[in-house]
Amino acid sequence: MLPIVKGLLEGERRSLSRAISIVDNDEPDSKTILRQIFGKTGNAKTVGFTGPGGAGKSSLIGKLVPELQAMRYKTAIIAVDPTSPITGGAILGDRVRMQRVIEDDKLFMRSLASRGAVGGISNSVRNVIRILDAAGYDLILVESVGAGQLETEISKIVNITAVVFTPYTGDNVQAIKAGLSEIGDLYVINKGDLQGSSTLFNSILDLIGNTEKKPVVLKASAKTGMGIKKLAHSIDELLRAKRMDYKEKEKKMIEAELRDMVLNMIQQKVSYMLTSNKKYYDFIDKLISKSTDPYHAAEQLANEMLR
Amino acid sequence: MLPIVKGLLEGERRSLSRAISIVDNDEPDSKTILRQIFGKTGNAKTVGFTGPGGAGKSSLIGKLVPELQAMRYKTAIIAVDPTSPITGGAILGDRVRMQRVIEDDKLFMRSLASRGAVGGISNSVRNVIRILDAAGYDLILVESVGAGQLETEISKIVNITAVVFTPYTGDNVQAIKAGLSEIGDLYVINKGDLQGSSTLFNSILDLIGNTEKKPVVLKASAKTGMGIKKLAHSIDELLRAKRMDYKEKEKKMIEAELRDMVLNMIQQKVSYMLTSNKKYYDFIDKLISKSTDPYHAAEQLANEMLR
Repeated sequence: MLPIVKGLLEGERRSLSRAISIVDNDEPDSKTILRQIFGKTGNAKTVGFTGPGGAGKSSLIGKLVPELQAMRYKTAIIAVDPTSPITGGAILGDRVRMQRVIEDDKLFMRSLASRGAVGGISNSVRNVIRILDAAGYDLILVESVGAGQLETEISKIVNITAVVFTPYTGDNVQAIKAGLSEIGDLYVINKGDLQGSSTLFNSILDLIGNTEKKPVVLKASAKTGMGIKKLAHSIDELLRAKRMDYKEKEKKMIEAELRDMVLNMIQQKVSYMLTSNKKYYDFIDKLISKSTDPYHAAEQLANEMLR
Repeated sequence: MLPIVKGLLEGERRSLSRAISIVDNDEPDSKTILRQIFGKTGNAKTVGFTGPGGAGKSSLIGKLVPELQAMRYKTAIIAVDPTSPITGGAILGDRVRMQRVIEDDKLFMRSLASRGAVGGISNSVRNVIRILDAAGYDLILVESVGAGQLETEISKIVNITAVVFTPYTGDNVQAIKAGLSEIGDLYVINKGDLQGSSTLFNSILDLIGNTEKKPVVLKASAKTGMGIKKLAHSIDELLRAKRMDYKEKEKKMIEAELRDMVLNMIQQKVSYMLTSNKKYYDFIDKLISKSTDPYHAAEQLANEMLR
């Protein structure tokens, strides 16, 4: 066993932190770490937080964590930052604020940079969850900054998903349309003390609260503390109540992950095999002389390489 | 031969337009069209226009086209629009302006929506170029809206690349750093009549003009018409002078395309093969019971499927 794996299993923060970096950057020891911890995983529950930028997810999580800790959850946070230079500044500000609120020995917090490919970041988050799980964290909150596909993608890799809105993000109705109405187990109207929050609460309750899934809809305020205890208890209840559903979801998650991994490996191997395949270069010559077409050539090569 | 292919080879605009839609949307006839036209391609030359948003590429192309037509180039334009809702409005405005300038029977212009994946749009542009080529257009201008990877990606699928800057886009220095300094055969400082353009011209000449590739650096103005003739002549000269280089580049382009196509086909086939493979489901059960790890499982499956 690698010393770093031994360290993180013993709850050493420096090993944990370093192991996450290794895995997130796909450094050489990455696979060995993941193979060695895999048997120690499976205890942690995960909650995703998503919704439009500016909804106050970071502040909400900042207030929520002490409540969850009071319920004896050993909590860790993974924050997924988009690389967008436009929003980078604002998000960094939020992070700093959040970190100030929850400066705490028991808590572990880590930002991951979103690196373009949606599959890429999902894979990274999945692996970081495993490391935290192996290190003994039993509740992992994943905050996805509202940005494109990742906004809904995150729900596929966590046990339950909380969608956070505010009356003032403006794009609420659009956000609801854009697939957020199906993924939530919990809908939180943050800044629930502000004017307009009741209207938003009612319309979300009407639009989403009555769907087959019957998600929880509640108002909260990171600023005043309103609804935070209720949110923590809802999360706890959902995690306990839906244990059987998780088995089903976990199976689907593992199916998707295994398929992605097989596809990635095959892609790497095929790229390598092509460059040492005489037929590949023969086809290129034929394409240049127009004596075949790209589809025919690709099909021949693909069929030859697969069993 | 499909009637639509017959139509476009005879220069019928409706068939041409419809064929492009079919290929761009990957409709059922797409492959048949591409296979049937492939033998008729290889005459057209392509020029990519890239650079930061707001550099005035559309207006520049609008003024450039009549000059190129006067040189007997039968010209077509492909404009790649990003889907970003933020910039969508401004770009649409530019397009309308450009279309007004170059309302013309001989010209063919088409916008393609950028659909997220860089590989996806490159592939689409490549195929639309082939259709225009087969339809008898011998000069195809590809305008890539300055947006992320596509900005540099475009240079891989065209014969020569023009990078357009202005003294007022502000992000010029960053843009130069971000990979634009290597891809240009031509650097155009648009809005060259404005203050600051000489400074920019000189710094680009210093930074880029003296590199091994010795690209052409020139000032132009879509507004006053300054430098437009010179730009048209530079393009013409580059297209004539570098004919031998194109053979090399074409070979690389075909290599990359064939590899992408083989990878895509294999990915589709592997996804299908997995779902009908008993071992895949056995491994999922083993992963759930932690009696194997994902890397081992993926490797076994990958090796089994490849020859």
